[in-house]
Amino acid sequence: MQMKPINISEKFKLFNEHWTPKKIGELNGQQLLLAKLKGEFIWHSHENEDELFMIIKGSLIIEFRDKTIELNEGEIYIIPKGEEHKPIAKEEVHVLLFEPLAIKHTGDITSELTVKTFQNI
Amino acid sequence: MQMKPINISEKFKLFNEHWTPKKIGELNGQQLLLAKLKGEFIWHSHENEDELFMIIKGSLIIEFRDKTIELNEGEIYIIPKGEEHKPIAKEEVHVLLFEPLAIKHTGDITSELTVKTFQNI
Repeated sequence: MQMKPINISEKFKLFNEHWTPKKIGELNGQQLLLAKLKGEFIWHSHENEDELFMIIKGSLIIEFRDKTIELNEGEIYIIPKGEEHKPIAKEEVHVLLFEPLAIKHTGDITSELTVKTFQNI
Repeated sequence: MQMKPINISEKFKLFNEHWTPKKIGELNGQQLLLAKLKGEFIWHSHENEDELFMIIKGSLIIEFRDKTIELNEGEIYIIPKGEEHKPIAKEEVHVLLFEPLAIKHTGDITSELTVKTFQNI
């Protein structure tokens, strides 16, 4: 349990990898992750978990099978469980993710981008 | 289920009351709330729910029985279930809260500040 203030900007200084979420907190069976994104991720879905994206810096495109959205700084999007999505970051994007502890990074798909255990920072 | 981008700044323009959290999203049995705080709230705790505060604007003091913390813009704090706390906002503070749907605003205490149902905005 995180028992001191978590400074989002300071936490983002602790890593530079893309598409490798870092865990900054846990509560109620959920986790709070930070990630830096750049380039195209893979199509995937999370069968049982809704996933929240909050944009801290930059602009993120998320492709769905039936639409494409663009999220800008200060915007939030909740991806319903089961919905296939593909995030695309033309320039580096900083995001905060909120999702269940049980979630798998790329759902039932495994790729070279898949992270099995999210590192605590 | 919120299926479009949620713009935090735009949502904050939709209300002015203090200490009355507004619901902007739900996922995995949790809810995302926005609140404007000013002045002193009451001592309370949530027996079964951890509660996340993220400061969007301003500085929030949270008194605990054994310590006092100050949270500034871009900082997050997770209050563990059962821990008594009292938020104090000397100037208006904008916060984002993340907590279970089942949470009660002021725990087992009822005061004139207690909100029974969080309005969707």
